[in-house]
Amino acid sequence: MASSSSYSSSSCNSPCAACKFLRRKCMPDCVFAPYFPPEEPHKFANVHKIFGASNVSKLLNEVLPHQREDAVNSLAYEAEARMKDPVYGCVGAISVLQRQVIRLQKELDATNADLLRYAGDSCNRGTGRGPHHVGQNSGSYNFSSPYDPYGDHRNQRSSGQGNM
Amino acid sequence: MASSSSYSSSSCNSPCAACKFLRRKCMPDCVFAPYFPPEEPHKFANVHKIFGASNVSKLLNEVLPHQREDAVNSLAYEAEARMKDPVYGCVGAISVLQRQVIRLQKELDATNADLLRYAGDSCNRGTGRGPHHVGQNSGSYNFSSPYDPYGDHRNQRSSGQGNM
Repeated sequence: MASSSSYSSSSCNSPCAACKFLRRKCMPDCVFAPYFPPEEPHKFANVHKIFGASNVSKLLNEVLPHQREDAVNSLAYEAEARMKDPVYGCVGAISVLQRQVIRLQKELDATNADLLRYAGDSCNRGTGRGPHHVGQNSGSYNFSSPYDPYGDHRNQRSSGQGNM
Repeated sequence: MASSSSYSSSSCNSPCAACKFLRRKCMPDCVFAPYFPPEEPHKFANVHKIFGASNVSKLLNEVLPHQREDAVNSLAYEAEARMKDPVYGCVGAISVLQRQVIRLQKELDATNADLLRYAGDSCNRGTGRGPHHVGQNSGSYNFSSPYDPYGDHRNQRSSGQGNM
């Protein structure tokens, strides 16, 4: 939202960051202008370096107008991650998060097993008090790895937000 | 590794998927050939559509030879995710995983709190048995959100694998 409001206030005076970078005249119907304000030159430079201006333009025209800001921000995030880590890009973050999820799920299972044991002891002593977290998570995450850097993932399920 | 071995066995007979797609002669020193075997035409087509052949070629030349297969596979993963979800691409998967991590951490904290209560009860009754999972996780994940689709993430820390 910051981008759009910045654009509104400055578009009359200077070309958007994309047109400035590409050294072209910024027209009133410029597809980049609402999402690449002149105050954020690096945002377009990164996206241009990784995806290319033509591909970004095509993608913006393929999505609905209200989705364009999210699309640009996700492209900018991917581009920045790829510049910081040319080998893995933001897929590196996916691997890290996947490992965190697996580790947390294992620890939660182990803790729940402990809790069940304690609850069993209490029941045997007739306290009648039961654990209220036990069993909430078993099998509920259905986590499957979307990225194996050494494998072929053409047949893996999509991990895009729209499919999860 | 599958890509490299496929290439070794088939490169003498047919151009790599990239050169076939780009309709050019596949030379022995083709930078694409080891990673885009003719048996996987969609892999290059996806990467070309999202990043562009020129950007992929540049990136391959920027990383070390032993990192190139991982780089190509992560690009292929990103490209496929972007084609399935043009708005969020693989950043959608990052958001989903982030929410899973936060939810699991909260549930683990709650379960540990329950376990501590049961362990306290046991100690009060003189059993002397303590929980062995309690406290393993408190604050150990240092999770900070790498992607806010409505915010400006230029100042957020990198989430690339090399930096975590």
